[in-house]
Amino acid sequence: MKSRKKDFSEWYTEIVKEAKLCDLRYNVKGFVVFMPWAVSTMKKMYAIYEQELERTGHKPAWFPALIPEGNFHREAEHVEGFTPQVFWVEKAGDNVLEERLAMRPTSETAVYQMYSLWIQGKSDLPLKIYHSAQVWRYETKATRPFIRSREFHWIETHDAFATREEAEQQVREDMEMSRRVIFGQFGIPFIFFQRPEWDKFPGAVHTYAADCMMPDGRVLQLPSTHLLGQNFAKAFNVKFLDEKGESQYCWQTCYGPAISRIYAALISTHGDDAGLVLPFELAPIQAIVVPIPKKGSEKMIEQKAREVVERLSSCGIRAEADFTESTPGFKYNEWEMKGVPFRIEVGAKEAETGELTVARRDTKAKAKVRLGEIADYLKNEGRRQLEDMKRKAEEEFRLRLSSAESIGKLKEELERGKLVAIPFCTIEAEGKTCAEVVKEKASGDVRGTIYGKDEKPEGNCIACGKKAGAVAYAAKQY
Amino acid sequence: MKSRKKDFSEWYTEIVKEAKLCDLRYNVKGFVVFMPWAVSTMKKMYAIYEQELERTGHKPAWFPALIPEGNFHREAEHVEGFTPQVFWVEKAGDNVLEERLAMRPTSETAVYQMYSLWIQGKSDLPLKIYHSAQVWRYETKATRPFIRSREFHWIETHDAFATREEAEQQVREDMEMSRRVIFGQFGIPFIFFQRPEWDKFPGAVHTYAADCMMPDGRVLQLPSTHLLGQNFAKAFNVKFLDEKGESQYCWQTCYGPAISRIYAALISTHGDDAGLVLPFELAPIQAIVVPIPKKGSEKMIEQKAREVVERLSSCGIRAEADFTESTPGFKYNEWEMKGVPFRIEVGAKEAETGELTVARRDTKAKAKVRLGEIADYLKNEGRRQLEDMKRKAEEEFRLRLSSAESIGKLKEELERGKLVAIPFCTIEAEGKTCAEVVKEKASGDVRGTIYGKDEKPEGNCIACGKKAGAVAYAAKQY
Repeated sequence: MKSRKKDFSEWYTEIVKEAKLCDLRYNVKGFVVFMPWAVSTMKKMYAIYEQELERTGHKPAWFPALIPEGNFHREAEHVEGFTPQVFWVEKAGDNVLEERLAMRPTSETAVYQMYSLWIQGKSDLPLKIYHSAQVWRYETKATRPFIRSREFHWIETHDAFATREEAEQQVREDMEMSRRVIFGQFGIPFIFFQRPEWDKFPGAVHTYAADCMMPDGRVLQLPSTHLLGQNFAKAFNVKFLDEKGESQYCWQTCYGPAISRIYAALISTHGDDAGLVLPFELAPIQAIVVPIPKKGSEKMIEQKAREVVERLSSCGIRAEADFTESTPGFKYNEWEMKGVPFRIEVGAKEAETGELTVARRDTKAKAKVRLGEIADYLKNEGRRQLEDMKRKAEEEFRLRLSSAESIGKLKEELERGKLVAIPFCTIEAEGKTCAEVVKEKASGDVRGTIYGKDEKPEGNCIACGKKAGAVAYAAKQY
Repeated sequence: MKSRKKDFSEWYTEIVKEAKLCDLRYNVKGFVVFMPWAVSTMKKMYAIYEQELERTGHKPAWFPALIPEGNFHREAEHVEGFTPQVFWVEKAGDNVLEERLAMRPTSETAVYQMYSLWIQGKSDLPLKIYHSAQVWRYETKATRPFIRSREFHWIETHDAFATREEAEQQVREDMEMSRRVIFGQFGIPFIFFQRPEWDKFPGAVHTYAADCMMPDGRVLQLPSTHLLGQNFAKAFNVKFLDEKGESQYCWQTCYGPAISRIYAALISTHGDDAGLVLPFELAPIQAIVVPIPKKGSEKMIEQKAREVVERLSSCGIRAEADFTESTPGFKYNEWEMKGVPFRIEVGAKEAETGELTVARRDTKAKAKVRLGEIADYLKNEGRRQLEDMKRKAEEEFRLRLSSAESIGKLKEELERGKLVAIPFCTIEAEGKTCAEVVKEKASGDVRGTIYGKDEKPEGNCIACGKKAGAVAYAAKQY
């Protein structure tokens, strides 16, 4: 394998291919086939996210994949932002459709026309719905499996409230949920930024987006949550009758964790030079049993290997034994590359004594565990493994943080793969020209200000030299 | 509510609207919005099906929604069968695409080009993959929510084998799985028919399809499984090297349970004149706690109701309490209409004694249960409930079976809503004209012969009068 840190791009390409995560040979440009090893994990990620969404009061719905063009035109910024990216359906069979239909690039314009029918009074609020779906965007940027493709798999939530305060509270809840799930359960560190005015979701009042760091020092945007204010409510006539019997526009939010992209962050954050490292709860196989053949003991070893698998399976652990013809060494490498959290070696000695050798994927540490205790051991050690992976990832993330007071220093820091705090005039609309200077002179993108940190800037804006109004962060981005 | 048996069509329309299962007001013809109450159940149906598929060796993958037109042309029958139903994408943003793309009506032509890359030797076989997805078909028949729409939610499996025997065995496994899941866990009775030659899946050697009976006496097709033989393997060059190093075409099968349609069968099979009746494992809410207010005891009653919900939730039962302002009677009706399996009444007496009144949705039977035993009671009674629902559904199904030896009798039986055994010449291609006679003279559709029953016909074909070669079944169909 290539080195994850030194040649991240090649490492990524290699792991996607070797671990059979997806196949790029599908014959539509920008579309890939997601293969079983990746899909098994992404399905678990979906389930964890959906459970958390339901726990916080969201209900599931399925909206259509096709949206009439007219719907987009109801919100001016939205139509401008999304229509250049739309795959259009104009014909069905031999019939030309009366109005052309967009394959959803996102579902606001499909969902909110329904909300205007579903919401009448205060008792219909809050309305909190999530939709697990694929979306399609005709990306012109270079595509990269899981990171950016023309079809991706995500969840979108669409929430409506009676007051702005509740909507703002929802945006905070979305960010907390991201932390509980993406860091807490997937082990991926990130920072939530308030995005600059010029980088918001089309139609939003504010956009807050989670940036994680890839091993090459570029940021990758994970979920974003958007305070939509009443913009879409006005465009789609989403209203309720308040206590006084007066008609009021709802306050809305939406949130979009892209599972396929979070998977890219998952494998990049935890992987190492031997391949994938998957968290215990997300691994398609949690423990692989490798028999170590010995002349004359084959039967006994095979039997013991099967016994281990059966015992683990009956305790709800996803375990398999590798009885293929390859050597144990080849199997070790193969399953390490696949990121299986635990390997259990069963040789003649293990078969006789019932004391098994267990190797942890992340640390490569080995332990001796008795057969009777193996399931409990893996469950506990699996939890510990995740905590260790989180700690390691956080340390790596912390080392990426840096600061600069001049464009020259910023450029240097960006070249070293840092996420750089800079004094900056403002992330309001007026700051856009300064962001363009940062882009041009330092090849960096201004990601916004850290949400909830309220940092006080010192000195002058790194770009225009006027007194800085904000501590912004710049990075190279995916 | 309308009468399910006498006015099924109106009953169905009413329940879809009243229980908020889906909203037909979406502004693309033939597309609906699937609402939370229905989606919650369909997600559980997906999970049960996927678990069963994985248990029998299938792995999940995600294939693209868009398929190049050229792919369809590789299998002659397939292109003829499906292209009239395709939604076509010809533009993306402002760009005209080089080749137009189909929104998948089914995925064979997307999947098998990948199989030709993935399958090399015998060790790559069997390859068993499932894909949970939406498909789109420009239906010209009248659409009906869940039953037939231009977008539906299904699972498709695509399996490849080295031998015809294994493929035939898979077709049997698919049928057994249908029985375990659709009858065993959803409680919907059906019969698997071998479809006549003229009614096969385009490109298949044989098609076996499950027909259930709707309360108006019309059959609804549930999953079908197809023996594809080597047709697609030849079209897409899906080959493997056998033991002798010779290149052989694979034998293939595919199977497609449409979850949204099975949901239609679920609500129609079990519903009654008070509304939905949902199996315990599939209900979004399994137990609804209704407080019975009494002056002076409000606090105590509310507290007890909350205690019941907490206890049930902690035991993994989906329970909620209805604290809205409506009367208990209104709430009873509402939750019965929604099909919640158990209602728990908590009044002053229940709050004092801790002995709760539990009503079963299907039988309306009431029982007294102590708070400490409530979770176990519901779990056991929930299982019993499903068994009772299955028995009732099977009895209804059995009463639908009939036979006829003349076209006149057949017409009568079909008008009485029966699934009718008839002496028929053959379900091979030559029988098609006889099926047309059945259609014209008795307004019935020939569904095929019962799989695995090998019935010996007596007398002459009901249509042409020649010696009958098969016992076929006719019904009015959806």
